[in-house]
Amino acid sequence: MNTFGKILTLTTFGESHGPAMGGVLDGMPAGVPIDMDGLQRFVNRRRTGQAPGSSTRDEQDRVEVLSGIWQGKTLGTPIGFLVRNTDARSEDYEEIARCYRPNHADFTWQTKYGIRDPRGGGRASARETVARVIAGGIAIQALETLGITIEAHIVSVGSRLGVTDMSEVIEEAAKNGDTLGGIVECVIKGVPAGLGEPLFGKLQAQLAAAMMSIPSVHGFEYGDGFEMASKRGSEVMDVFVKREDGTIGTATNHSGGIQGGISNGEDIVMRIAFKPVPTLMREVVTIDRDGNPVTLKPRGRHDACVLPRALPIIEAMAALVILDNHLIRKTNVL
Amino acid sequence: MNTFGKILTLTTFGESHGPAMGGVLDGMPAGVPIDMDGLQRFVNRRRTGQAPGSSTRDEQDRVEVLSGIWQGKTLGTPIGFLVRNTDARSEDYEEIARCYRPNHADFTWQTKYGIRDPRGGGRASARETVARVIAGGIAIQALETLGITIEAHIVSVGSRLGVTDMSEVIEEAAKNGDTLGGIVECVIKGVPAGLGEPLFGKLQAQLAAAMMSIPSVHGFEYGDGFEMASKRGSEVMDVFVKREDGTIGTATNHSGGIQGGISNGEDIVMRIAFKPVPTLMREVVTIDRDGNPVTLKPRGRHDACVLPRALPIIEAMAALVILDNHLIRKTNVL
Amino acid sequence: MNTFGKILTLTTFGESHGPAMGGVLDGMPAGVPIDMDGLQRFVNRRRTGQAPGSSTRDEQDRVEVLSGIWQGKTLGTPIGFLVRNTDARSEDYEEIARCYRPNHADFTWQTKYGIRDPRGGGRASARETVARVIAGGIAIQALETLGITIEAHIVSVGSRLGVTDMSEVIEEAAKNGDTLGGIVECVIKGVPAGLGEPLFGKLQAQLAAAMMSIPSVHGFEYGDGFEMASKRGSEVMDVFVKREDGTIGTATNHSGGIQGGISNGEDIVMRIAFKPVPTLMREVVTIDRDGNPVTLKPRGRHDACVLPRALPIIEAMAALVILDNHLIRKTNVL
Amino acid sequence: MNTFGKILTLTTFGESHGPAMGGVLDGMPAGVPIDMDGLQRFVNRRRTGQAPGSSTRDEQDRVEVLSGIWQGKTLGTPIGFLVRNTDARSEDYEEIARCYRPNHADFTWQTKYGIRDPRGGGRASARETVARVIAGGIAIQALETLGITIEAHIVSVGSRLGVTDMSEVIEEAAKNGDTLGGIVECVIKGVPAGLGEPLFGKLQAQLAAAMMSIPSVHGFEYGDGFEMASKRGSEVMDVFVKREDGTIGTATNHSGGIQGGISNGEDIVMRIAFKPVPTLMREVVTIDRDGNPVTLKPRGRHDACVLPRALPIIEAMAALVILDNHLIRKTNVL
Repeated sequence: MNTFGKILTLTTFGESHGPAMGGVLDGMPAGVPIDMDGLQRFVNRRRTGQAPGSSTRDEQDRVEVLSGIWQGKTLGTPIGFLVRNTDARSEDYEEIARCYRPNHADFTWQTKYGIRDPRGGGRASARETVARVIAGGIAIQALETLGITIEAHIVSVGSRLGVTDMSEVIEEAAKNGDTLGGIVECVIKGVPAGLGEPLFGKLQAQLAAAMMSIPSVHGFEYGDGFEMASKRGSEVMDVFVKREDGTIGTATNHSGGIQGGISNGEDIVMRIAFKPVPTLMREVVTIDRDGNPVTLKPRGRHDACVLPRALPIIEAMAALVILDNHLIRKTNVL
Repeated sequence: MNTFGKILTLTTFGESHGPAMGGVLDGMPAGVPIDMDGLQRFVNRRRTGQAPGSSTRDEQDRVEVLSGIWQGKTLGTPIGFLVRNTDARSEDYEEIARCYRPNHADFTWQTKYGIRDPRGGGRASARETVARVIAGGIAIQALETLGITIEAHIVSVGSRLGVTDMSEVIEEAAKNGDTLGGIVECVIKGVPAGLGEPLFGKLQAQLAAAMMSIPSVHGFEYGDGFEMASKRGSEVMDVFVKREDGTIGTATNHSGGIQGGISNGEDIVMRIAFKPVPTLMREVVTIDRDGNPVTLKPRGRHDACVLPRALPIIEAMAALVILDNHLIRKTNVL
Repeated sequence: MNTFGKILTLTTFGESHGPAMGGVLDGMPAGVPIDMDGLQRFVNRRRTGQAPGSSTRDEQDRVEVLSGIWQGKTLGTPIGFLVRNTDARSEDYEEIARCYRPNHADFTWQTKYGIRDPRGGGRASARETVARVIAGGIAIQALETLGITIEAHIVSVGSRLGVTDMSEVIEEAAKNGDTLGGIVECVIKGVPAGLGEPLFGKLQAQLAAAMMSIPSVHGFEYGDGFEMASKRGSEVMDVFVKREDGTIGTATNHSGGIQGGISNGEDIVMRIAFKPVPTLMREVVTIDRDGNPVTLKPRGRHDACVLPRALPIIEAMAALVILDNHLIRKTNVL
Repeated sequence: MNTFGKILTLTTFGESHGPAMGGVLDGMPAGVPIDMDGLQRFVNRRRTGQAPGSSTRDEQDRVEVLSGIWQGKTLGTPIGFLVRNTDARSEDYEEIARCYRPNHADFTWQTKYGIRDPRGGGRASARETVARVIAGGIAIQALETLGITIEAHIVSVGSRLGVTDMSEVIEEAAKNGDTLGGIVECVIKGVPAGLGEPLFGKLQAQLAAAMMSIPSVHGFEYGDGFEMASKRGSEVMDVFVKREDGTIGTATNHSGGIQGGISNGEDIVMRIAFKPVPTLMREVVTIDRDGNPVTLKPRGRHDACVLPRALPIIEAMAALVILDNHLIRKTNVL
């Protein structure tokens, strides 16, 4: 249940204030060159303190690869990796252990397992995404050798579209102890036609599962998405054209690069909606495990808006899906 | 790749104009009473000709259960089932076999497999959903014994919200040879807190994958969804309350019944966006397999809007997800 | 749990006296020519009445393919298939429903599910293997196009080795109302080096799981097998040689064609031990569900020795494993 | 492909002379008390230098648990763990990198992946089993709370049965630079009736896959095993009896505790055959990657017989299978 993917699988582990976060990336083809410095730079993009309104927890997130890569190349064996948790401050978790913070996983997790590590949110912390970024960063390097690139960018923060003054918007919310969500668009270029499994494994279904598994995501759409629902069939027709190089493409891309669950060679375009960060820097009234009302004082170190740090997470998850489907595709013929 | 689910798995088969559509529902617990007449009624809800603007292809969709249910109860063994394709008219498929219809799977499918059954769209036809509805209908009956109910309803058709005059709207589009999409909302009631796997198997990720695997779906959201992205944290806080019966709930439900990927006991609420039907009843200009322009005349029997028929499909897929997670949940403790 | 394989998956269904036995073979590559007559002939090899001492139940086992093959070729879509149960005689099952026959699945099945279809053993009947043979027969045809062939033969029946007078041996046991087991050897030729997953998916582990899943099998070995345990390292060394055609092979084959879990290009050789058929044609003393002693009279139609009919089952399961690993192998490189 | 299990899954990683061996045990139920000292003691049983004829490589195998256990109890989250490789001496691997040692994975691995870490055998080294023992050791502690115990013992070493003078036998072979295999029997007590999935997931099929995935294993049998093949049906009948406590059992146990693929409540008994260690302490003639003959001098530190160290590996793998099936069993009813 902590494993993602079919041929290329990522299994992750780690609690926010435990010794380490890590994972195993299995099914990576052999002989792929991996640039470890480039990987570290990619992982750094999701670190705290790199972006406006982000948490002041200072984790170095130094990637330690334990297996599967040797002399700069993948071996075809599982790639075990971890980052240590070094700046965890857990002294104050006893209150959290007794209380259910609103819009957090405290209540549901406690109900499900009857036990939880309350320190820093335990495994429910978004810190788990560091393992996704490491694995996805490796997948991105493999995809680049195939000419496939992935780029996510912020479309809106809170109610503000086209976000040139993002820092300002986030800081204004943070000043009031409030938080923001927003929308990210991700574009995958260079995917050949033919990726995706047409029934339950439609490419959009796999991408949706990948994105909806990221903490705080509440919505997913591809191509014209929700807007497409209000259009007429004649308005969203992606007419086929024969290009000068003899290949077949479409004149428009309402379909977002996927038709019948299978990539059609156009850019794959999707949008992901994030809810505002649930931890306010204000007093919050809630209840404890016995149902008694309690007032939680703001504490801990939290982002006021996760979108800047979310970009590499989205790119990483997209890369895992695309590379996995590239491998599955190889089995379509004898 | 034609299998869905973890413990409760559905594997389907069938081409639109082949002998039959069918599937195997495996992992159903033993001893669950199944009402076969009720199942047939549920399946009938997605049949053609039952709703405005639907195709005139007349399939009886008589469910034939081949195993796994005996004397009105499940045996714990796989439930094999099928419906025969009886009203298929395939004489005219040669043109389709040579051409790529826009917004269809013709091009991507041909590229992926190098071969396809062009008759009625083959496996890419939405006719495959009949197998989902049969399996989901069985799951719904099991869920009902647990007090869990699922209901989907249409929120909008084309640009029209609150759709009291749906038939009129669809017929108006059909008259012009055009088609419509729309938005469906699905509400699941009675789900206890604790269902869903917190990392990659978040309940919303599983539901998203289920819904995005339905033909024509272009978007998914749960709770306040995309709207949540424009709100502040303080505006969408679902405050916990202790109810009179001693249970814990939330005063509002912006979270849509899921927190941290796990159900919290509130109604699970999600919305699904459908693109307009890709087959227009007009002449369409496209290209053939060699890239030469061709004009396709309208033919075949197609829906002008799939939303009425989509409701049981959505309910079926939701049921498969919820029942599967109910079973997984049992393994959380020793 | 009724699904076998990783990329190439077989899901089966069916109770012995239910309407039909069947399955879905998913993941078959597209464009593979399938000879339906040849498939039927292969399936006929496991039919009753074809071999000495076999049951007199007369099932035609006419294979009906419902999808996935069109105009003589695979489509890359799931292959749904079934055979009808036509000669089931279930009138006498009430006694069996109350009793636990020794060395049968009656007791364990009832304990596990709390319910069972007692007619002809229900799903616990070896009749389920017909679905394996159909799917495996398709896989065999695909393997043949790759130059891979599979052949199983009987090594011993009961205590008799080298079984030229098999019918006589079996009939002698049957005359006394007794039954026999035996040992089958299966040789797979033409498998290239490189198939098998080196940790948990070692080729021998997959083959063992496949063979041990066949009813009545109690032992599995490959290469020199159990005998190897009593040898010294220096006695079983398969020395490498460079062949005249430049390829590398081994001078001997104690390893049975697999080293480190991966095929090495030599013949894959394995042996499978079958227990004697559990249903004697004598009175048997056992207990009913309440623990009261009962005497079961011989009834029904049963084999005195399953080995002749087991050969195509073994070949079929081996084919599913090898073809699956051929597909997995394609994903070892980018 | 490096993952084992269905609900309870173990994913492992690590090359013999890489930084560490480790794994992720996912699906462990929450709230299970784990004795870390006891776990370390169990892991120590497979360490080198603990048994006659074992390698002199001195790995401390200090288990480091990185997640999933907190305050002495499982959290229901994935248990990440590792041991460091500290005594690896890789300076001499260049010759091995060029050559194919007989009965090793060098040739097959190179053919499959086109690349390999030759140091100490890389991932093909039996050192990978340390991760299995850690995970299995955790499973064993969980099983003990359920009253289930597992014990493996040596039946024969080389051609010597009943092995009271084991050290002597092994040392005699080692003195000649030769190696030995042998047979291990494993008995699982306290398993309730009802575990195992009756088709492809028969308990014996899962156990066989588990055992055959252990390096050097060439054969598996359960109950009377291969001997059963030469018996008559009337000779191996396990007659049912009602015990004094009202439970139902069998008077004999030819079936080895499994009937119809499902445990019947009797002791589960199986035997596993190990080939002799492939690395002789003699000169060995083989070929290099170009097919040229080479003579390999004995080097490295190797066991002359792995059986003593194999016992905890077998117990660990058996524990993973049984605990997994205990969890699957919970889903048999609604």
